[in-house]
Amino acid sequence: MINLGEQIIGFETSAEASETISSISRLTGEKMASFSVATITEVDRAVEKATAAFQVYRKISGVKKAAFLEAIADEIIGLGDELITVCCAESGLPKGRIEGERGRTVGQLKLFADLLKEGSWLDARIETANSDRLPLPKPDIRSMQIALGPVVVFGASNFPLAFSVAGGDTASALAAGCCTIVKAHPAHLVTSSLIGKAINKAAIATEMPDGVFSLLFGDGPVLGAQLVKHPGIKAVAFTGSFGAGKAIYDMAVRRETPIPVYAEMGSTNPVFILPRALSEKPQLLAKAFSSSVTLGVGQFCTNPGMLIYESADAAPGFIQQLEEEFGQTLGGVMLTGDIHKSYTVGVEKRSEMSGVEILAKGNYTADLIIASPVLFKITSDLLKVYPDLSEELFGPTSVVVEASAKKDIIEIAKNLSGHLTATVHGTDSDLVEYKDLLDILEQKVGRLLINGFPTGVEVCSAMVHGGPFPATTDQKTTSVGTAAIFRFTRPVCYQNMPDQLLPNELKNANPLKIWRLVNGNLNKD
Amino acid sequence: MINLGEQIIGFETSAEASETISSISRLTGEKMASFSVATITEVDRAVEKATAAFQVYRKISGVKKAAFLEAIADEIIGLGDELITVCCAESGLPKGRIEGERGRTVGQLKLFADLLKEGSWLDARIETANSDRLPLPKPDIRSMQIALGPVVVFGASNFPLAFSVAGGDTASALAAGCCTIVKAHPAHLVTSSLIGKAINKAAIATEMPDGVFSLLFGDGPVLGAQLVKHPGIKAVAFTGSFGAGKAIYDMAVRRETPIPVYAEMGSTNPVFILPRALSEKPQLLAKAFSSSVTLGVGQFCTNPGMLIYESADAAPGFIQQLEEEFGQTLGGVMLTGDIHKSYTVGVEKRSEMSGVEILAKGNYTADLIIASPVLFKITSDLLKVYPDLSEELFGPTSVVVEASAKKDIIEIAKNLSGHLTATVHGTDSDLVEYKDLLDILEQKVGRLLINGFPTGVEVCSAMVHGGPFPATTDQKTTSVGTAAIFRFTRPVCYQNMPDQLLPNELKNANPLKIWRLVNGNLNKD
Repeated sequence: MINLGEQIIGFETSAEASETISSISRLTGEKMASFSVATITEVDRAVEKATAAFQVYRKISGVKKAAFLEAIADEIIGLGDELITVCCAESGLPKGRIEGERGRTVGQLKLFADLLKEGSWLDARIETANSDRLPLPKPDIRSMQIALGPVVVFGASNFPLAFSVAGGDTASALAAGCCTIVKAHPAHLVTSSLIGKAINKAAIATEMPDGVFSLLFGDGPVLGAQLVKHPGIKAVAFTGSFGAGKAIYDMAVRRETPIPVYAEMGSTNPVFILPRALSEKPQLLAKAFSSSVTLGVGQFCTNPGMLIYESADAAPGFIQQLEEEFGQTLGGVMLTGDIHKSYTVGVEKRSEMSGVEILAKGNYTADLIIASPVLFKITSDLLKVYPDLSEELFGPTSVVVEASAKKDIIEIAKNLSGHLTATVHGTDSDLVEYKDLLDILEQKVGRLLINGFPTGVEVCSAMVHGGPFPATTDQKTTSVGTAAIFRFTRPVCYQNMPDQLLPNELKNANPLKIWRLVNGNLNKD
Repeated sequence: MINLGEQIIGFETSAEASETISSISRLTGEKMASFSVATITEVDRAVEKATAAFQVYRKISGVKKAAFLEAIADEIIGLGDELITVCCAESGLPKGRIEGERGRTVGQLKLFADLLKEGSWLDARIETANSDRLPLPKPDIRSMQIALGPVVVFGASNFPLAFSVAGGDTASALAAGCCTIVKAHPAHLVTSSLIGKAINKAAIATEMPDGVFSLLFGDGPVLGAQLVKHPGIKAVAFTGSFGAGKAIYDMAVRRETPIPVYAEMGSTNPVFILPRALSEKPQLLAKAFSSSVTLGVGQFCTNPGMLIYESADAAPGFIQQLEEEFGQTLGGVMLTGDIHKSYTVGVEKRSEMSGVEILAKGNYTADLIIASPVLFKITSDLLKVYPDLSEELFGPTSVVVEASAKKDIIEIAKNLSGHLTATVHGTDSDLVEYKDLLDILEQKVGRLLINGFPTGVEVCSAMVHGGPFPATTDQKTTSVGTAAIFRFTRPVCYQNMPDQLLPNELKNANPLKIWRLVNGNLNKD
């Protein structure tokens, strides 16, 4: 284990401050390591290095950047069991989950590497000159995406690998051509340090510039604000709570030069169960829902925090199944003591609300560190009295809402704020009858699921892990999947630029053989 | 002429307030018409109508929306000479210019109509299911762009047709599927009213919903704030001054639910002339530059407000040519009295700065309403003393900056803030020698021009009329060209949605025959 963890500033390490923060095992409560807290000088140096490195890194070919990302993936695998052991201890998450998450993390890096090697993502657009056009000749105009500059990524607590130091935000920022400074999440400092060193090993091996990556440790709000407000930073990616995400957004838009903030702030992810589906498979739905709510101790952004159904003949049977299935769920250790405390307080508060029924509790254990699942039940009228009930309570809990008719279902949908996902369970005829519900929901979310559950986010070209505010601060983007790269780029166009000075992506001969929109026609010629 | 102009609220008109604003002829100073000022009730009604209409309009096919845009173009042409006469009187711009601008306006509408008919712009992405995949089956995920909701467009003074009521912002918002409320610019109320009525005629003829378009008249800041802060509004487009654009941005990001603001706030558009180009064609460059500065009385966002050259043997000759050519330029009537006043004050202020030389003045006229061109000259050291000199002064003026060596040129470029454009004049060997200048400039602008002038913005698929702050509030977008449509859309994905319930764009059979990314492969099958 590490004695004193250091800042990783490009290819150097540094520990200027005597003040430290500690990594604590969630399993034993023991201190695993101390980390020096980043000083403002260290922050400045990381940004300076990123700024200088950016002038080199932005020009490196997609193929070479891909080799860098693949080398990071290899280095992470090379960390072997040490990474898994440390990450399990710091996060309290089980080995199988962390191994799976490592697979996803490596998979994300390779997906972006493949995107870079193929090259068409740059959205190259070419309009060739026409000197004969009247009344004015047409100039030669060519556009493509270019990188924004140094980017700050906030490591997330709930995905200590897949949305932390080498997670999706870092992978997409590096793929875009942006040098990246990660603020380590205080809940997994040693894990962060291991991954940070792996990234730098990969950077050196693939001849990337010193400063392409830095990793800073420190007090969350202080270090976060220093980075977000730093004039050298051009964009921010964050996954976490609404409070922290909104605070970052507010700082960024008040800068002298505002910058984009991609904050994914979670959501309630409502699940609607339509009448025929409910009567056809009550047990299956009750079981799958209970499992989705309590998976990973409910610590997913896509955790379904609300289930809405219509009272009908089959409904009492379904509710009984829910009680039984949810009663069999297990709790677990949560990511941090603070998260556990917020969960406990939130559950208590809901339990005390008049009219809120506790429908079921998961398996109880006397172990104080274990968070137990709790399922609440209310009628739809109560949502208006307690709007807080439709807000996220992070953990293994959900609110079952009984609506008395279709019109109540539609009203609930209309009143939803922005969410990452919404889910509808229905037979074919349910879905046709409730087409208006689907129309409303697609305007409220980034992802609309039919007959599934929102936990488990596929990492692919078509994924939209985003959604209208307050789910995110930028509904025009996704933080999962290949389209996440566009958070860190912008278009630029060149007018009458000589062919030899154009980037390869825009040269006449199309040396990279990428898809391009040439005079309105998409081709690879 | 109109006696009392009314608000256009969907297919109704309304004039609740007794308070009015007036349209004044720039040519005669006479009052052309009065317009009732929008009340808050009228604002609310316009937003309510847009919100209701949006639920219909967003689902209308691309082909039918294209017919709407084409009908608007036809109705504008159908307004005939009355539109030209009124627009010339209100703007003070000459007939040829307004006729050309009408052509551009109609062309923009048709360009977006073509984009909608072709259909591939929606960025359809399909990942098909694989139930055999291990460790977890792969779900079916399909994404595309959908419209954001009701949008507010601020009419711009300097393009009373092409960036006003039926201009590029409105065309791209309507094409995206967003119902649009335009705030008429006070400098061309009657022109706005004529165009607004033409849009509604087209909407009725092509069976668009009542509320797809509204046009409101009123006191700029008051009405603007009411619209930007209205909870029903989902995005804002603006072209104009930095002060107004930044104020709109600040309001929008402080809303309970922040919304995107696409403010194009102009820029100085620096022009760099490299040594060999300068010695090869001093007269040509001097003439073309003088013409670009004074075109349209300098009232373009892309007006070149700064020319940077390196002192060398040929430089004195070039400066002499500039004096001569610029001395022959003509002034003209500016768009509004306020704009003229700001220009006059700005010119006076610069004239009084110690070390700032007046290199040339355009043709002088005693007519007080005419703004005369003025060309200033400074050395590059003075830019650091007077940073204001590198900011936009709207009108027929520019600052010629003499640098003593290449390193000064590079330093000027590095110190630039965000601009819409930068231009470099150079021979092939100049451009190779100054490749580092090009690398810096592409990071500062939306459009980098070689051997041209920035005025005259080509409307096409590859145009980027945008750039880093303070040129715009969102460097990731363009306000000219087909990519402007993405300002008003966001991605949504559907997971395991039955084929018959998917939008046509995402159905298995690809009924619209559009380009789609299917399992990573782009095709039309």
